[in-house]
Amino acid sequence: MERLIGNAIVGQSGGPTAAINATLAGVIRAVIENSDKDGRVIEKLYGMRNGIEGLLNENIVDLTDIFADTSKIDTLENTPAAALGSCRKKLPRVGEDDTVFEKLIAIFKKYNIRYFFYIGGNDSMDTVAKLSKYLEGNDYEMRVIGVPKTIDNDLMGTDHTPGFGSAAKYIAVTMQEIIRDCSVYTVKAVTIVEIMGRDSGWLTAASAIGRVVNGVAPDLVYLPERAFDMDRFMDDVRAALEKHPNVVIAVSEGLRDADGRYVGEGTQSGAVDVFGHKYLSGTGKALELAVKEKIGCKVRSVELNISQRCASHLASKTDITESVRIGRAAVEAAIDGASCKMMVFERTSKESYVCEIGYADVSEIANKIRTVDERFINSEGNNVTDECAEYLLPLICGEVNAEYSKGLPKHIII
Amino acid sequence: MERLIGNAIVGQSGGPTAAINATLAGVIRAVIENSDKDGRVIEKLYGMRNGIEGLLNENIVDLTDIFADTSKIDTLENTPAAALGSCRKKLPRVGEDDTVFEKLIAIFKKYNIRYFFYIGGNDSMDTVAKLSKYLEGNDYEMRVIGVPKTIDNDLMGTDHTPGFGSAAKYIAVTMQEIIRDCSVYTVKAVTIVEIMGRDSGWLTAASAIGRVVNGVAPDLVYLPERAFDMDRFMDDVRAALEKHPNVVIAVSEGLRDADGRYVGEGTQSGAVDVFGHKYLSGTGKALELAVKEKIGCKVRSVELNISQRCASHLASKTDITESVRIGRAAVEAAIDGASCKMMVFERTSKESYVCEIGYADVSEIANKIRTVDERFINSEGNNVTDECAEYLLPLICGEVNAEYSKGLPKHIII
Repeated sequence: MERLIGNAIVGQSGGPTAAINATLAGVIRAVIENSDKDGRVIEKLYGMRNGIEGLLNENIVDLTDIFADTSKIDTLENTPAAALGSCRKKLPRVGEDDTVFEKLIAIFKKYNIRYFFYIGGNDSMDTVAKLSKYLEGNDYEMRVIGVPKTIDNDLMGTDHTPGFGSAAKYIAVTMQEIIRDCSVYTVKAVTIVEIMGRDSGWLTAASAIGRVVNGVAPDLVYLPERAFDMDRFMDDVRAALEKHPNVVIAVSEGLRDADGRYVGEGTQSGAVDVFGHKYLSGTGKALELAVKEKIGCKVRSVELNISQRCASHLASKTDITESVRIGRAAVEAAIDGASCKMMVFERTSKESYVCEIGYADVSEIANKIRTVDERFINSEGNNVTDECAEYLLPLICGEVNAEYSKGLPKHIII
Repeated sequence: MERLIGNAIVGQSGGPTAAINATLAGVIRAVIENSDKDGRVIEKLYGMRNGIEGLLNENIVDLTDIFADTSKIDTLENTPAAALGSCRKKLPRVGEDDTVFEKLIAIFKKYNIRYFFYIGGNDSMDTVAKLSKYLEGNDYEMRVIGVPKTIDNDLMGTDHTPGFGSAAKYIAVTMQEIIRDCSVYTVKAVTIVEIMGRDSGWLTAASAIGRVVNGVAPDLVYLPERAFDMDRFMDDVRAALEKHPNVVIAVSEGLRDADGRYVGEGTQSGAVDVFGHKYLSGTGKALELAVKEKIGCKVRSVELNISQRCASHLASKTDITESVRIGRAAVEAAIDGASCKMMVFERTSKESYVCEIGYADVSEIANKIRTVDERFINSEGNNVTDECAEYLLPLICGEVNAEYSKGLPKHIII
């Protein structure tokens, strides 16, 4: 592969996570240190403000300059949310309206940008795939790499996604604390914890990790991979209340019945986001009201909400370390000639946890959803298997030593 | 004061906190180590399971035995919720129905209990006050001490309450993370964060601590100490949206209008707890719907919920240390002859933070509510003052080094 000398640009897109800045930090570190046998390949690293949307307005910053003091990169690694800002812009299909792509190419030429890194989820990989496709029929040489990020863990082609481990740790730890909190009274009570995950139940499954660590886990766990049946649910809750008074249930926000109707639909707005995804909220609340009506015991619902994706104070060390590594690897792969790829994790050992980094064709990944494996859900569809908990456990291991000043964590604002 | 030799009992009551076990740990440590010039005073320490309710059923455990391995006490200090279980039982007024008190005295005699420690909030101090009052007209000699605990910080006679600092730290840190999360998009959006606090706004005020640390704090803060006016609120939100697109607002669950009507009343159940307190939820949700209707921008509400009181992984070191100290001090005060008292914190320096421990008559404290000082709320009633943030700041300082095993915090179950 020929050497491609020029500048690079990196952007963040989609919902923020506790680890997306760690990946940005990995990209920055790799660019600062990059060289091959003939010397420096990438000169400058630009950052798009608010992803592709900001880039179209030439709203870019010079990250090589901002992070000349490399101690700032440590703080970046533990700063939640997208430090460069994010967007939810969807590019048109190639051939449909190419003015957007022409505008982008003009900007790339202006800044001599030869490397394009885009850190994001499913919709961001769509952007990477479209830009890659447009470049195929264009003579501007640029290497385009997608770096995955999503707390939902729902991207194809990768063992797991950067950002998932930290969200999973937040959920698993919070669940331990909620179960302790629920244990103090003797009155029969049901606590329903609603967890993020529109189409895949990975995050909800993480609530059960404690079962294989210390035996403390929710009594019941419902994932969107299985059709939700209200009568069976009530039977499950009644049976659990027979065993002990403090029943804790984890439910995914995306639960649907056999007809595809969201459980939370009755209590939600019905609004959709720019990609046409239904905006959900209220699955826990809907089930709380149902239990109150049908069983009549004390019941409450708790929505873990956005802390699931931004609680960097409780990030998984494994996740943060891997997120930095995958950012670095993206730069190295691009320098070596890779393009139109998404970086992926591969678990290469069954005995102990070993995670290697590779890449796959982004066109095979974008716009697909990876759901929880069948073998990870029990036959009753009301919990996950021990095998599932064991599989998830390595991803939440290790604690970060976040820097604090006067009681608050230090974040970087760029 | 004469030496009173015998056994002790300790109970936990009311809503759990991240620090109530630290106070229990302090009581246990002091009993294990206790002695005066003539030797051991307290022989055994019993624990009531589920507070006074369990005690009435003689549901007690031998804590001296359980914690003979003192390394367990370290784990107890970082275990959230009430390890002994809790209750919400209210004793009858003295003279109204004394059979309950007679039953208690019989149990005290049976186990030779001469020291009674009760860790709890407002309602628990009512129990301490009534038991103290009954003992005045009875010849059974026993020393009764209340040790405060409440995340709400609403007890009279003490600078602050054990448990508040950890809840405040959880809120202050989470608010930093939520503000980062909200900052990523350019679309005008309002995020309303609902914080616990039925009658006092201390916890909601804690959301603003960041302002005097790093300048990052909610744009608007509404406490229940001021009557809530929907029109003024909308004006405030519109003005904030003029300044920047990502408006973050902290609201107390207990917000009421000038007629005393809860803001969340429309969306709540109207249920009351055993003490007749209205069960609230939905203040944030009610305001979310109002902003959507009146302003029409993107808006969401986040309820921080029970993690506020059980997130021991993010406890304040200052709070945990003080909670242990006040548990110890209760035992020492009782050995020295104190009874019918509640232990209190006193801030003894204006220059730097110094917290000393004393006690006050419990009869003057029970059933009263300490609200946020007038000088801590701005004149518009839509934020707290810098003086308030400075006052709260020392209480959230320091981080605990919680023990983790396989990615999860270690808790003790007794």
